[in-house]
Amino acid sequence: MTIAHTDETVQVAMLAIGDELLSGRTKDKNIAYLAEIMTEIGINLSEVRIVPDHESRIVTAINELRQQYQYVFTSGGIGPTHDDITADAISKAFGVPCIYDEKALQILADNYKSRGLEFTETRKRMARMPQGAVHIDNPISTAPGFNIGNVYVMAGVPSVFEAMLHNVIPTLHTGRKLLSQTVDCPYGEGVIGISLSKIQENNLNTIIGSYPSFNNGRFSTQIVVRAHEQDAIDAAIREIQSMLDELLAKEVR
Amino acid sequence: MTIAHTDETVQVAMLAIGDELLSGRTKDKNIAYLAEIMTEIGINLSEVRIVPDHESRIVTAINELRQQYQYVFTSGGIGPTHDDITADAISKAFGVPCIYDEKALQILADNYKSRGLEFTETRKRMARMPQGAVHIDNPISTAPGFNIGNVYVMAGVPSVFEAMLHNVIPTLHTGRKLLSQTVDCPYGEGVIGISLSKIQENNLNTIIGSYPSFNNGRFSTQIVVRAHEQDAIDAAIREIQSMLDELLAKEVR
Repeated sequence: MTIAHTDETVQVAMLAIGDELLSGRTKDKNIAYLAEIMTEIGINLSEVRIVPDHESRIVTAINELRQQYQYVFTSGGIGPTHDDITADAISKAFGVPCIYDEKALQILADNYKSRGLEFTETRKRMARMPQGAVHIDNPISTAPGFNIGNVYVMAGVPSVFEAMLHNVIPTLHTGRKLLSQTVDCPYGEGVIGISLSKIQENNLNTIIGSYPSFNNGRFSTQIVVRAHEQDAIDAAIREIQSMLDELLAKEVR
Repeated sequence: MTIAHTDETVQVAMLAIGDELLSGRTKDKNIAYLAEIMTEIGINLSEVRIVPDHESRIVTAINELRQQYQYVFTSGGIGPTHDDITADAISKAFGVPCIYDEKALQILADNYKSRGLEFTETRKRMARMPQGAVHIDNPISTAPGFNIGNVYVMAGVPSVFEAMLHNVIPTLHTGRKLLSQTVDCPYGEGVIGISLSKIQENNLNTIIGSYPSFNNGRFSTQIVVRAHEQDAIDAAIREIQSMLDELLAKEVR
């Protein structure tokens, strides 16, 4: 665990907002997507919270997370209906008014006009954001997300969340990428645990994780080695490989 | 939102523990599973957090959540390897020693003996739990989870998490079940938002949520009405149906 919190790593959090995620109605896809992308670009997703569409709950979570982490990414609650309260909650968290953003009104008006649709009061709600927020473009369905301070507010619909995230990524300060290598291990953790623990102690500039699967009545394990330097990974992998060769020679089951 | 926090509802939280969930290596399945089951049995999953395998982070999260919610369910970090630190962290959170539980040692010893396998020091780690904890049986792979105070500590491997959860459920105090009904709506939220907001105001004993999907360049919506009484749901559904009939008559797109 030694290298997880160096100065070189950027620590971020995600807040997924929505009753539907907590009721089981919707299976969240955005957390895993963000996690994967952050790892790819060298940012460490360090905490995730899921809260309901409840203003004070969103305000509290945002204010806790934005003080602890370099960036906070949110998903959900920026549509046009009465249960879309994220813009209000974020405004309250930052102590600024939630306003109809002129530029957002304009791009939404243009979009509906071009489609021959009425720009209803409901649709206008999607132009609301905290005063001073900066747009996050939405190439999929027009209504923008927004950024205020270190908080990035994005849609809950996965295709829109992903598109918005791709617009945000180039603006982020990223850390030094953590490299990773995986070894498939035919033994359960009960067999390799002590040896693996020693290998971790021998290789303090790596993070070694072991992830069990259970299939057909047997455990197997994926061993993942992460480090900033490929040399460090190689050294740990060599020790893991020796351990496995030894077990194989003993025909341990 | 008016009925979400009555005395009749049991509010609970989940803490999913594991670096692999935050790195994107593993897509969590336990959150959605717990969410669905809790809804079925009339318990309101009110918050979820995901934290890494980091002792102080687990301790802080557990102590915050167990004071706010009636029950807290955890997943992950109870295997035998060096990165399985949940038992230690929960012990620390409760201020009790983390001990080798005699009964757990016995059932693990018996299990390995019956399989002709050595009961290694590593495997013995799976018998560690906070002093005073009560077992949660694991019919899949023997090593038990545990319950201490209002916290239920379960495995991260989904089949084991699910089996343990099924052993926990009969022991829980459940609330009054929230009934739910869904209407498929061919219109986006921009079309129905204002009307739906009025229907919510007319039906304060319900929670009405709208969940957009985006396919083939068009939004559609699922409208979900939840309430304790079927009558209340029926009344709201009637108003929603009228709204849709009216839009259909106008051929709104």
